[in-house]
Amino acid sequence: MLPLYHVEESIVVIIDIFRATSSICYGIHNGAKAIIPVSTVEECLSFKHHGHLLAAERNGMVVEGFDFGNSPFSYSAEKVADQTIVLTTTNGTRSIELSKQAKKVVIGSFLNLSALCDWLKEQGEPVLLVCAGWKGNFCLEDTLFAGAVVERLQGAFLVQDDSAVAAVDLYQNAKGDLRRYLRKSSHSERLKKLNIEEDIAFCLQIDQLDTIPVLDGGALVRLAQFEKLI
Amino acid sequence: MLPLYHVEESIVVIIDIFRATSSICYGIHNGAKAIIPVSTVEECLSFKHHGHLLAAERNGMVVEGFDFGNSPFSYSAEKVADQTIVLTTTNGTRSIELSKQAKKVVIGSFLNLSALCDWLKEQGEPVLLVCAGWKGNFCLEDTLFAGAVVERLQGAFLVQDDSAVAAVDLYQNAKGDLRRYLRKSSHSERLKKLNIEEDIAFCLQIDQLDTIPVLDGGALVRLAQFEKLI
Repeated sequence: MLPLYHVEESIVVIIDIFRATSSICYGIHNGAKAIIPVSTVEECLSFKHHGHLLAAERNGMVVEGFDFGNSPFSYSAEKVADQTIVLTTTNGTRSIELSKQAKKVVIGSFLNLSALCDWLKEQGEPVLLVCAGWKGNFCLEDTLFAGAVVERLQGAFLVQDDSAVAAVDLYQNAKGDLRRYLRKSSHSERLKKLNIEEDIAFCLQIDQLDTIPVLDGGALVRLAQFEKLI
Repeated sequence: MLPLYHVEESIVVIIDIFRATSSICYGIHNGAKAIIPVSTVEECLSFKHHGHLLAAERNGMVVEGFDFGNSPFSYSAEKVADQTIVLTTTNGTRSIELSKQAKKVVIGSFLNLSALCDWLKEQGEPVLLVCAGWKGNFCLEDTLFAGAVVERLQGAFLVQDDSAVAAVDLYQNAKGDLRRYLRKSSHSERLKKLNIEEDIAFCLQIDQLDTIPVLDGGALVRLAQFEKLI
């Protein structure tokens, strides 16, 4: 229920674990110059003659005629280094759109969990965790990630929302074996049909990257400020 | 996110544990002829000369000039037997309004948990649990109650939503001592200030009543069908 919050006073963390925000972190880490999130497939297509890679996912699949969708394996260094990618996904890009008024918009995934949390602690600003969910609905993997962030921040921040309290609890139930826990998810059946088991295993790896993508003038780029810190 | 669901195919259970739906269950159990939920204080006032009791709560307090608000202790047999009550609350009545297209709208609380679940099992219809929350936000006590319902129904129903999976988990964490668990809630500070500790203890009692209030032509009345069953 994003419209209920004051995004303009906060750093917003966009969360769409399967798979948009995991792939964005991986792509930016692998040297993509920028990832431009757009809302519609048509908008994405309009970048056709700019020399960019075009990525479009709808209902978990690559849209026909596009270079790729949101599988993290499409965002390897070999494929994306020095490239600009224009990306539209079912859920993730809409959350970014809704958060544009925020002080800063950054991208979270299990892959960059610790880097993200360390950076958030240093900022001393209110943090709003935005779970993209699936077509507007609650989804378990995004909530678990939010819980992981809140667990790491709760000594340094005041937790002001019941959904954050609940997310920590769920994460603590799940963290021993995230993969196994997520088998309970209604989502897991849908994901199984898409044949993306390897993607899922990839997206559930914790702390593989120290890269934080940040929204800068409509494009996601590597957070430079953070680079200096490490 | 009620607009995302197909209410018209479901039995909707309205949940606003602190305190609207607990008080409605208690009031109907105690012989109130009907409780008419209305959206605004003005609408409530318009019933002034009908010989009804007028109940209005905003921000947790009785609105000035009204007979009472939504404290369960105002819904004792002494006060409400054979009366019709017109009620407006911050959150609960709005959820009822949004659910009017449902096959049936019933009222849930810990007080009538088992009666409600037994009845739901007999209906064999899809069930949608609507947590009223606090001003549109997620709130922990309503989610815990939803978890309690899902836990009891999950053998008989297919659980189709990640939020239901999560609610059961949270309820299982909490059910040993609901009161204590809810101290973690952001909400609990707000409630403490309202001086309604006794109301809260009352609303967390499980299975005190076998009454199910049901929406019938705009008014909540005792579910007659169920009366015959017990």
